[in-house]
Amino acid sequence: MPKITFISKSGKKIIAQAQNGDNLLEVAHLASVPIDAPCNGSGTCGKCKMRIIKGELKSEQSRHLSDEEWAEGWRLSCESWIDEDLDVEVPETAEAFRAGIRTADLSNSRTKRAFEKTREKLEEGGFLSTPAVFTKLLQLSPPSLDDTMPDAERVERAISVEYDNLPVRITFHAFKKLALVLRESNFQIRVVLARYPGYLSVLDVFGTTRQMICAGVAIDIGTTTVSSILVNLETGELLAQASAGNSQIVYGADVINRIIESAKPGGRERLKKAVTTETIAPLITELCAVSGVPKSQIYRVSVAGNTTMEHLLMGLYADPIRMEPYIPTFFIKKVFQARNVIPGLAESCQLALAPNVGSYVGGDITAGTFASGLWDDERLTLFIDLGTNGEMVIGNNEYMLCCACSAGPAFEGGDVSCGMRATNGAIEAVTIDAETMEPTMEIIGDENEKPIGLCGSGIIDLVSQLFKTKIISASGKFNREGDRVKYDEYGMGRYILATAEESGNGHEVSLNEVDIDNLIRAKGAIFSAINLLLGQLGMDVSCVERILVAGGIGSGINFDNAISIGMLPDIPRERYLYIGNSSLAGAYSILLSRDAEDKINELSTTMMYSELSSEPGYMDEFISACFLPHTNSSLFPSVQ
Amino acid sequence: MPKITFISKSGKKIIAQAQNGDNLLEVAHLASVPIDAPCNGSGTCGKCKMRIIKGELKSEQSRHLSDEEWAEGWRLSCESWIDEDLDVEVPETAEAFRAGIRTADLSNSRTKRAFEKTREKLEEGGFLSTPAVFTKLLQLSPPSLDDTMPDAERVERAISVEYDNLPVRITFHAFKKLALVLRESNFQIRVVLARYPGYLSVLDVFGTTRQMICAGVAIDIGTTTVSSILVNLETGELLAQASAGNSQIVYGADVINRIIESAKPGGRERLKKAVTTETIAPLITELCAVSGVPKSQIYRVSVAGNTTMEHLLMGLYADPIRMEPYIPTFFIKKVFQARNVIPGLAESCQLALAPNVGSYVGGDITAGTFASGLWDDERLTLFIDLGTNGEMVIGNNEYMLCCACSAGPAFEGGDVSCGMRATNGAIEAVTIDAETMEPTMEIIGDENEKPIGLCGSGIIDLVSQLFKTKIISASGKFNREGDRVKYDEYGMGRYILATAEESGNGHEVSLNEVDIDNLIRAKGAIFSAINLLLGQLGMDVSCVERILVAGGIGSGINFDNAISIGMLPDIPRERYLYIGNSSLAGAYSILLSRDAEDKINELSTTMMYSELSSEPGYMDEFISACFLPHTNSSLFPSVQ
Repeated sequence: MPKITFISKSGKKIIAQAQNGDNLLEVAHLASVPIDAPCNGSGTCGKCKMRIIKGELKSEQSRHLSDEEWAEGWRLSCESWIDEDLDVEVPETAEAFRAGIRTADLSNSRTKRAFEKTREKLEEGGFLSTPAVFTKLLQLSPPSLDDTMPDAERVERAISVEYDNLPVRITFHAFKKLALVLRESNFQIRVVLARYPGYLSVLDVFGTTRQMICAGVAIDIGTTTVSSILVNLETGELLAQASAGNSQIVYGADVINRIIESAKPGGRERLKKAVTTETIAPLITELCAVSGVPKSQIYRVSVAGNTTMEHLLMGLYADPIRMEPYIPTFFIKKVFQARNVIPGLAESCQLALAPNVGSYVGGDITAGTFASGLWDDERLTLFIDLGTNGEMVIGNNEYMLCCACSAGPAFEGGDVSCGMRATNGAIEAVTIDAETMEPTMEIIGDENEKPIGLCGSGIIDLVSQLFKTKIISASGKFNREGDRVKYDEYGMGRYILATAEESGNGHEVSLNEVDIDNLIRAKGAIFSAINLLLGQLGMDVSCVERILVAGGIGSGINFDNAISIGMLPDIPRERYLYIGNSSLAGAYSILLSRDAEDKINELSTTMMYSELSSEPGYMDEFISACFLPHTNSSLFPSVQ
Repeated sequence: MPKITFISKSGKKIIAQAQNGDNLLEVAHLASVPIDAPCNGSGTCGKCKMRIIKGELKSEQSRHLSDEEWAEGWRLSCESWIDEDLDVEVPETAEAFRAGIRTADLSNSRTKRAFEKTREKLEEGGFLSTPAVFTKLLQLSPPSLDDTMPDAERVERAISVEYDNLPVRITFHAFKKLALVLRESNFQIRVVLARYPGYLSVLDVFGTTRQMICAGVAIDIGTTTVSSILVNLETGELLAQASAGNSQIVYGADVINRIIESAKPGGRERLKKAVTTETIAPLITELCAVSGVPKSQIYRVSVAGNTTMEHLLMGLYADPIRMEPYIPTFFIKKVFQARNVIPGLAESCQLALAPNVGSYVGGDITAGTFASGLWDDERLTLFIDLGTNGEMVIGNNEYMLCCACSAGPAFEGGDVSCGMRATNGAIEAVTIDAETMEPTMEIIGDENEKPIGLCGSGIIDLVSQLFKTKIISASGKFNREGDRVKYDEYGMGRYILATAEESGNGHEVSLNEVDIDNLIRAKGAIFSAINLLLGQLGMDVSCVERILVAGGIGSGINFDNAISIGMLPDIPRERYLYIGNSSLAGAYSILLSRDAEDKINELSTTMMYSELSSEPGYMDEFISACFLPHTNSSLFPSVQ
């Protein structure tokens, strides 16, 4: 059996046993070697390169490898088959989208204020009268020979009396502690309660002198990025926030590749483990470390993600989602213990999932729709969530129609050679001098931060600026020459934002024609989906009174630039509003309020779902939209 | 740190680290060394002897050690303190009450017929119209582009329609399997359902072509013996039975010593582990092995035990049970997952506990009372469960009064030098020739079985026969001499049933004055409790129309002998009936029927509980009863 030693730049080794004829990428996956493979082994993305240091394998030079790379030993791992022992170098960039937990200082932060506003809106809407989890002080009379009611019955009765004689059920966790806590604190206790239809559940019990916090975690599981917050469930206060790349990225950049991988032997467990053990569990550990809240005091976890993400999170067989007639296992969330899904959580911690609407419109959109307020406003509103799956809803307080399109991860900095998440070192805004072609950049981080890559909003800005300054053509090909524009041996042009010397990590930061093509296809998918959705209602863009844009695209999106590349409809700019991560705001609402959870479930059942992939005109619309700004430039009068 | 090496006769070694000054018995407990310690280290029982092979420790010769034993190196471990490295021999007999799983062939067995009868009674009582767990065949129409309801909702709706539109909840276990099972079996499935108040739960799902059984396990947790059966939940058929000693025995023979041990640091976990991991889990493994039923298809486990046993099973803080005002954590059972308590069970397996009535009358009695039929009969009935805790109920279909007394484990063969459980080699019946003093014995096992010890019924018979033949006096002291009656150096007499040559294990089988004293105290406890209970109702024994005796005492009890030693009241023999293990029969009823479970809960709330330990006359009654048959011989006219 050949022994394969994977070696990272930092020297970390992972050793795997393989069989002759095994695919190198698959062996790397099974051994949990971090490697970017957006197309998950179909040979189309060229990202899964590895360099053979010792030994030989069976491979042919693919179009993704230059002669120089080939000579240096670089191989496309998905097109390489094992024949003997190997030492393999795994490129450093491969870890870019994995792990890399990012937390933010909350003192005085924009995020903190945003969630305070969400909480205020919940309060105004009356949703906080039914907190999902809350605590209650109980002053019980101690038992005596004349009052010998057992502890559990004593506590249940005391609670029931306070809440309209609702039945009370005690969890095993609280049950086990009860006798000792009661006696240590002379029958003065604080109970942690959860509301369920028809009964109350006792999640935990503490003596009144004991410091405790009733905390919850809201999670937005994106195909590319996972964002999380730790919240005081009683006050709604944001205690910590953290985000990380979704570790499932090694199994493909989009939901289809993930589903295909999950249907292979052991795949459901691999995909589940990637997003739970390798992504969410470390995030929760970080949230607890930053805030000082013990993991045992997290009583509720709410999750919003697209349908596939929610299914893979639970380890479900997801293949039927992508195969006609496109049937998921569930739409509306079930009541499950969080520990069934996420390791390390307490037995009494609940898991709440935002409901799905269709095979490609999921909990991120139902949660986001609630948070956007679209459902409660009479203005015709278009709500767009820019993620790897572009999802959108059009409607108002009377009706809602939704759909999804596959945009790819470009808006989150994925699928682009120098793309990155919106973390320190990411270029989030760019202008280019039309004359000199020199860039002016805004970079996330402190004032001396050097650029290391481009996040979504930076990529949109850059492509728009390149187009406006005629550096690239309407089809995304380079036209001009200069210090900032270079061409490789095959004639492919690129724009250099920072040379290796100027950058923060010694690598050139640039955008090439392949990257631009990826962005054009992403923006084309979004625009054509908007157009089709409006068409289904017999409307055009002029009817739209508001466009709410959500997503982890960066600190915002420059709507002028997004319109100028033909990504968003050309309507007055003041109708646009960037609302941040609405999926996370919806998950936060579910965390705090049982009524909000019910309302989101109700929205999900009233929302109509349009399956674009079975729409006849979709491909034509998409192809027309794959130009800057569009083949039909009359759709973008202000751009001209 | 001294190193202590415990060595069993069979050569098995357990090595433990200790501190100077540590108690030898406590070190043995922490290292899970099997050792009998009925009094759990209070120095009264003399059972925890160990022989020091190498090294020395601090100890004084106790009254339980002869000079010869002392010289050989025998020490009472509870009265020995560690000072240096030791090699210690642990006596073989110590394992007698641990492990030793016993299964029985069910073909044509009495047990099988007994449970068939219990099932018939449940059927007649209408209890089987609400099976607790059952399966249902569902023939679903497969989804299509016009019918895109997700899998879980599809299944829930189909079930709900069949059962009065009850809400349906799916367990995580079934949820995970659902999509694959539906598609593998073309949407023809069998679901395993459980009834809960107000809803149905989907515990599991199978394709219709898949062989499956819907099984459950009923367990009677005695202080000394744990008995279990595996049952087909749909037909009630007994599939396997197995029993074993309760591994908690090493922490004391009675509930008080167990509670004291459990209140020490780590004690709750130790006691829980002893009865779950070390006793019940191996029993369930054996039940599955014998019957061929996979553990994953056990959907319900019902448990009946006394209040302390149920609390220690769950790992609860049990100290308040034994301290005034005697308050347990719970009476009525809660809904918990079985896997919270017993390792190795499936996520969707439920745990049902028979309800408790007082700190010393528990689920064994409520379950047993249901099974006895006392609650449904107008005759005044006394129901006695002869266990380590003697518990009894007097009443009929109008009222019930119950109490408990601590009899010790003598009725189960414990606390007696040659005592053993009612397994192969146990003497279960004895007569003695008044002239020759030679015994005639019935021994459990095949016809050539040689005796190795005495079970409860054998001990009662033997003491009765020794008393009738005047070999012993009314105070239990030996009077006669002969081949069968020997005296030791201190003058203590014993009756030899089998010499070392005659016995099945090379050890003499005999009963000495200490053993007889233990039995007299046990029977005294039972009789005085009966008398007090009757007194509280202003009655005497003549009012009692039936006496139902239950317990794992052996294949039965000779009522003539039991009356002749003053254990049971002297009323006409035809009013007596031995009903076997009624606690297990009650647990079996809970397993099969939701209504039976509800009825038992109802019985537990109507049953009145009398706490004998706070009754002023109890000690006088007890002392009077500690003679053969009684100080007041007029209570036993037929014995004279």
